[in-house]
Amino acid sequence: MRILVAGGDGFCGWPTALYFSERGHEVAIVDNMIRRQWDEELGSNSLTPIYSMEDRINAWEDKSGKAMKLYEGDLTEYEFVHSFMQDFKPEAFIHYAEQRSAPYSMIDREHAVFTQMNNVVGTLNVLYAIKEIVPDCHLIKLGTMGEYGTPNIDIEEGYIKIEHNGREDVLPYPKQPFSFYHLSKVHDSHNIMFTCKSWGIRATDLNQGVVYGLWTDETKLDEKLYNRVDYDGVFGTALNRFCIQAAVGHDLTVYGKGGQTRAFLDIRDTLQCVELATLNPADRGEFRVFNQFTEQFSVLELAERVKRVAEEQLGLTVNIAHLENPRVEKEQHYYKAVNSNLVDLGLKPHFLSDELIADLIKTAQRYQDRVKTSVIAPSTTWR
Amino acid sequence: MRILVAGGDGFCGWPTALYFSERGHEVAIVDNMIRRQWDEELGSNSLTPIYSMEDRINAWEDKSGKAMKLYEGDLTEYEFVHSFMQDFKPEAFIHYAEQRSAPYSMIDREHAVFTQMNNVVGTLNVLYAIKEIVPDCHLIKLGTMGEYGTPNIDIEEGYIKIEHNGREDVLPYPKQPFSFYHLSKVHDSHNIMFTCKSWGIRATDLNQGVVYGLWTDETKLDEKLYNRVDYDGVFGTALNRFCIQAAVGHDLTVYGKGGQTRAFLDIRDTLQCVELATLNPADRGEFRVFNQFTEQFSVLELAERVKRVAEEQLGLTVNIAHLENPRVEKEQHYYKAVNSNLVDLGLKPHFLSDELIADLIKTAQRYQDRVKTSVIAPSTTWR
Repeated sequence: MRILVAGGDGFCGWPTALYFSERGHEVAIVDNMIRRQWDEELGSNSLTPIYSMEDRINAWEDKSGKAMKLYEGDLTEYEFVHSFMQDFKPEAFIHYAEQRSAPYSMIDREHAVFTQMNNVVGTLNVLYAIKEIVPDCHLIKLGTMGEYGTPNIDIEEGYIKIEHNGREDVLPYPKQPFSFYHLSKVHDSHNIMFTCKSWGIRATDLNQGVVYGLWTDETKLDEKLYNRVDYDGVFGTALNRFCIQAAVGHDLTVYGKGGQTRAFLDIRDTLQCVELATLNPADRGEFRVFNQFTEQFSVLELAERVKRVAEEQLGLTVNIAHLENPRVEKEQHYYKAVNSNLVDLGLKPHFLSDELIADLIKTAQRYQDRVKTSVIAPSTTWR
Repeated sequence: MRILVAGGDGFCGWPTALYFSERGHEVAIVDNMIRRQWDEELGSNSLTPIYSMEDRINAWEDKSGKAMKLYEGDLTEYEFVHSFMQDFKPEAFIHYAEQRSAPYSMIDREHAVFTQMNNVVGTLNVLYAIKEIVPDCHLIKLGTMGEYGTPNIDIEEGYIKIEHNGREDVLPYPKQPFSFYHLSKVHDSHNIMFTCKSWGIRATDLNQGVVYGLWTDETKLDEKLYNRVDYDGVFGTALNRFCIQAAVGHDLTVYGKGGQTRAFLDIRDTLQCVELATLNPADRGEFRVFNQFTEQFSVLELAERVKRVAEEQLGLTVNIAHLENPRVEKEQHYYKAVNSNLVDLGLKPHFLSDELIADLIKTAQRYQDRVKTSVIAPSTTWR
């Protein structure tokens, strides 16, 4: 299958591209390499050393004998989108190419506007290009579980049947996003749903949980293929950040009480889920929503688990610090989300294990000289 | 009260500015005059002659002895927004300053992107400026009933209580917008709701129906104060367009079966509703949603009513044409929307009367030399 991975330089995109290439698909990467510029802007970096895209693609060809195409440019420029779509004519368009950090979107007005424009216009351009050039192409769009917020009822997958005053309908699940970033994904979802209905686009919206882990079968083959991993207060996410904090002797930074419950998954399951969606495409005109996660944890639970593993298995001393919460969010709430669509398609989850946590901490120890402790604390407040 | 009317050159904005000025409020208008440029772009015009903003404001001062301030510029430019907010320090910000035509947003990719960027970024800038400069200012934002689409259950005002698997919550009402324009309003609503929660913004989202009519007590005082009224396939809306078509002997253009039911209101009620919202502001942190309409009609019902009034009262011959529907929408559907919030605040509706229809047709006859019949047919298709 001709599979295009937009955002193929990123934490999820790079291993996805390798995964599909390894399995014999024809893979092209689209990226504007902006994630590397954000590191510059924020003075942060990946825990692991990462190579240039050219080095990565060459290393992969050396290892596997498989070539991947690269289209370097920005989805917000339609001429660029039009030209690579015309050239590659993808059958599946896997769309990770968005600014994906909530704190980054909350830095200030410029970052909020940038995030929404970048994400929404990029996706609009992709939709128009599919309509014009490859109307049968399946759009697999990464959304986020954060679109739903924390409602006091179960979170269904994209839609909910509502009975009201003696009538009923199945309607889009109400959204209560947490940040300008999460809002941008809600805007995308509404735009995509509309084009499925109006133009017959086929789309799958993958509302992904927080991704942890680092290694996949392909990225660990060679240092040049290593995946990036973030630990800073802006791009670092809960579990990975805690493991790296434990490794370098930094307090585990829990925001507020830590009762915030979120959905999580192993990066290997990200690849598995995206593959399941790709190999089982949505119908023409169908807007399909899958909740892409395997387990739920509260932030405090994760911190306590990392502390236990670090102390018991690695002999480290770990302290959990409850920082004043920089975000506006409930710190104790009901949370129960459904994730049966991907399981029904055959997802075999890698549940969180102590081994994975220990391995992540050891990786962080190996690269601890690269860690800049000054960027770990949250620097952005919601208020 | 210091009241700012953004979009004060438009069909709703101009009469709103006069209405508040007449009632002794301190009024400032913000507009970039782009609505007049869209007429140029589309080769269309207002049925009624409209004067320049300078002439309008001077004529109003001559008639009433009341001055209005004008800030000319674009809400997507933050320096401009910052400067007029700093200068005027509004207590109420009435926000009409958006691209408000569904067909315009569907012309092509550029118009879709323009509509979403213009509307979403403008509103983000207003939210940031309120937060920075006048945190107590009440944002009164014009949304649209079209945000809800046509669900098979009653449409509530912004929120709905959902019982699900033995639990319940009051959640944002699910949105199924019809066009990239309607989508832009949904994006706005989500962004505003988030800032109410996170920053304590006070906001009222007025989900307005289709506005008909033309004259208000103030706009009819002098030709220089006349309001614009649109009859073309892009900016013209159902009832007004039918009256003008009847006047010039054009078929009434019903799209498809005409069973599409929508919510409507008289422009005099737009002013009354906006006044009620302004004089009864939302609390800090409250995101209040009012459905702003007085009656529901199907498009075919309205066409038949215009035909009857035109034939019986004015002796015209009127034909109703069912055009192939350029839009993707249900032509027969359930529709029942709640509008009690504004009624509870004291709204006294002007229900649709045969007199108003006859008067609109007579106005159109008076200006029939201005009508360009070539712009009446729908020129944009959804597919």
